[in-house]
Amino acid sequence: MGVALCPGSYDPPTNGHIDVIERAAQHFDSVVVAIIENPGKDPLFSLEERTAMLKEALGHVDNLEIASFDGLLVDLARTRGISVIVKGLRAVSDFEYELQMAQMNTTLLPGLDTIFVTATPSWSFLSSSLVKQVARYGGAVEGLVPPGVAKALETRFTKEPE
Amino acid sequence: MGVALCPGSYDPPTNGHIDVIERAAQHFDSVVVAIIENPGKDPLFSLEERTAMLKEALGHVDNLEIASFDGLLVDLARTRGISVIVKGLRAVSDFEYELQMAQMNTTLLPGLDTIFVTATPSWSFLSSSLVKQVARYGGAVEGLVPPGVAKALETRFTKEPE
Amino acid sequence: MGVALCPGSYDPPTNGHIDVIERAAQHFDSVVVAIIENPGKDPLFSLEERTAMLKEALGHVDNLEIASFDGLLVDLARTRGISVIVKGLRAVSDFEYELQMAQMNTTLLPGLDTIFVTATPSWSFLSSSLVKQVARYGGAVEGLVPPGVAKALETRFTKEPE
Amino acid sequence: MGVALCPGSYDPPTNGHIDVIERAAQHFDSVVVAIIENPGKDPLFSLEERTAMLKEALGHVDNLEIASFDGLLVDLARTRGISVIVKGLRAVSDFEYELQMAQMNTTLLPGLDTIFVTATPSWSFLSSSLVKQVARYGGAVEGLVPPGVAKALETRFTKEPE
Amino acid sequence: MGVALCPGSYDPPTNGHIDVIERAAQHFDSVVVAIIENPGKDPLFSLEERTAMLKEALGHVDNLEIASFDGLLVDLARTRGISVIVKGLRAVSDFEYELQMAQMNTTLLPGLDTIFVTATPSWSFLSSSLVKQVARYGGAVEGLVPPGVAKALETRFTKEPE
Amino acid sequence: MGVALCPGSYDPPTNGHIDVIERAAQHFDSVVVAIIENPGKDPLFSLEERTAMLKEALGHVDNLEIASFDGLLVDLARTRGISVIVKGLRAVSDFEYELQMAQMNTTLLPGLDTIFVTATPSWSFLSSSLVKQVARYGGAVEGLVPPGVAKALETRFTKEPE
Repeated sequence: MGVALCPGSYDPPTNGHIDVIERAAQHFDSVVVAIIENPGKDPLFSLEERTAMLKEALGHVDNLEIASFDGLLVDLARTRGISVIVKGLRAVSDFEYELQMAQMNTTLLPGLDTIFVTATPSWSFLSSSLVKQVARYGGAVEGLVPPGVAKALETRFTKEPE
Repeated sequence: MGVALCPGSYDPPTNGHIDVIERAAQHFDSVVVAIIENPGKDPLFSLEERTAMLKEALGHVDNLEIASFDGLLVDLARTRGISVIVKGLRAVSDFEYELQMAQMNTTLLPGLDTIFVTATPSWSFLSSSLVKQVARYGGAVEGLVPPGVAKALETRFTKEPE
Repeated sequence: MGVALCPGSYDPPTNGHIDVIERAAQHFDSVVVAIIENPGKDPLFSLEERTAMLKEALGHVDNLEIASFDGLLVDLARTRGISVIVKGLRAVSDFEYELQMAQMNTTLLPGLDTIFVTATPSWSFLSSSLVKQVARYGGAVEGLVPPGVAKALETRFTKEPE
Repeated sequence: MGVALCPGSYDPPTNGHIDVIERAAQHFDSVVVAIIENPGKDPLFSLEERTAMLKEALGHVDNLEIASFDGLLVDLARTRGISVIVKGLRAVSDFEYELQMAQMNTTLLPGLDTIFVTATPSWSFLSSSLVKQVARYGGAVEGLVPPGVAKALETRFTKEPE
Repeated sequence: MGVALCPGSYDPPTNGHIDVIERAAQHFDSVVVAIIENPGKDPLFSLEERTAMLKEALGHVDNLEIASFDGLLVDLARTRGISVIVKGLRAVSDFEYELQMAQMNTTLLPGLDTIFVTATPSWSFLSSSLVKQVARYGGAVEGLVPPGVAKALETRFTKEPE
Repeated sequence: MGVALCPGSYDPPTNGHIDVIERAAQHFDSVVVAIIENPGKDPLFSLEERTAMLKEALGHVDNLEIASFDGLLVDLARTRGISVIVKGLRAVSDFEYELQMAQMNTTLLPGLDTIFVTATPSWSFLSSSLVKQVARYGGAVEGLVPPGVAKALETRFTKEPE
């Protein structure tokens, strides 16, 4: 009751993700950040690294737990007894994909609702994949991701260039 | 704390509106349905009629109050100490307009967030104006609006045809 | 059976409208062009004028009838026993509005389907209202509308400037 | 004359696909369901399996043939003398992609038209890839795909988990 | 050569408009800001007031002229020998409307191109009509419009409330 | 000063690309066509081939240089002292992606603006990947790409069928 689920690959988390999770934590009793263990494409950061990044960036939020799942989000929601998913919306293309996922999730688990928070305009252009692409070529990502993530990206792409 | 604002013209309320308000009432401690007293264009139903329609259609929801406002929504939110607006999203065009309003409201009252609930696919084509247009020409709107609204539309357009 | 309905205000018909109707006539046994007698806003051309314009521009199409209606399109479809509406699609905003109308029409008359034909790219920017706006200020609309319509627009705006 | 082409990967067919094909069969003299033999990504089901699934799910439709093609759809249309492609539209992103394909096909084979049928709102969130993703993790897909497809998905993902 | 046209109602100009004009002035030799004298709906501010507001807000831009027109933009472009229109883009709905206008303008005056500048994310939710609506009800619009415009809006809505 | 950057994979260049570059060359003092050396997916044509194709197709444009880059576009812009990127816009999905890239580029290099040119409606359905798909199956791409590109595509897919 009053618990919201914030699912994502978080590979890595951006300031946009942090913004959405902070808002969910304001409006709900507590939030479960649910990391997708094995997203379709190879993640750049391991589940442990992504968990640590989120923990560090969200250390100031009390009513929050960081979990992970491998499989269907509805199974996690069912197990935990959670009935609300919170997602960020940036653009129209986000909207259509998220709407499709929301309707599928309600079909698989009646009563499971998805609600959407809009990202601050300043983050509306951010995505994990764009941030990785920039960092890969040595672009400065400070200010776009939490400090710990910026450092991790720099280390990763300096040490093991692709 | 935990109170959500559901603003709208509700001229008249449709099953899509009722669906959104019911969901808001499930996820928040309580809901204030805020009727816009004088929407831009002449409303078909008076504020009193619209209030009565919502009361009847939402009689089964306990944690709900029906209010009205004339002016800026942010002023109502400020007065009441409410920090969340809940809106339904149907289509892409909804999304862009609502995003614009959400960002304006946050600018006018920092900390006021707008979250979006997606309408059930079955109601995705519904709007008050489309329902009025159908009823005006004698089309059957039962099943699209609450029973009391269907009756009121029939009475209105039989007695005083435009 | 095999009859398609092509509804519209046609105030005035553009080359885009003619293109859509011609395609409908190619794919269906016959087509009923259904003029909305009293569109929401005051039409520039009377029903008689719009009928004459369509007749002239579509004189080369045999399997076609020009009709008009005042009220709900579904009532016309029911009376005529027609089960297909054909509409042109230009842009995303068209698409959402037409989808909404299509779903409402299916709800009001189960079995009534709407199918969409895409306009030739060259006409994708055309609309009756844009054409009127251009003609009102003396812009050349030849090539955008049938010749008879171009002449009628010129006459109208020269004789009775708004 | 009066024959419509319904192309797709159908890997596997969903209830949304079946809905679109049934509507095409109502509005046209006959329908050729054209399975893309080798879609870009590895299909989950072989051409034979997909053909059998469509045959079973569409057994109640008389005026229908199931074919397959490897190459350009316009070549199949030319060989068969077919001048209409029928596609389903769900969302805005569908619309833009399909519009692009429609215009390319008309360019490659002048006179070949694409018309669009809108999916029932209840199926608007369905896609083959989403269904596969759900089934892969043991989610229940009954009600989203024809019974034979549901069984085939279950068998496939139980026997050879990925 | 090298002159850009920035058309608009500017009723009143917002910070988003100023941003677009400043960028146009950076990329082109000079800019003609072209105020639509009589926009479709009654303007809140007279042409003189709008001209003064733009002059004040753009005093720091040297390569700029403020003009007005009544009729077709293409006629102004032709008279002045200008071949580029610069417009700001905020949302998808903007995009489709502007694309339509751009294609009509090219049709009416071959060689007249429209190029688009994207608004800073911070202004992406701003529009003249939204600003007027906020100011009408006493909302604070400082920071959304140039200082002179904010003052004019306050005066207007205090003295002559609607 | 007055130099515009036209980045792209150009694998291969289409008539839509050529159209955009020609317009950029009309509105700016000079244009640098910047080929992405190693686009995400394996290019069909080598950097040398793509460079030669662009040179041939743009031989009639004087104020133009063809360059290439491997890394971030902002680094090329910084090195060259260029402050304007010019991109073509076809559809809504283009728009959102390009907006995201434009905002990221401005963030990485303040002062770097992206402006958009709309493609001629006739090319609005064209993309390099669609052209390759058509050519791969023997479809005629003359009229969609420059003559040299059509020939190269034919040679490539005849000699080394995939």
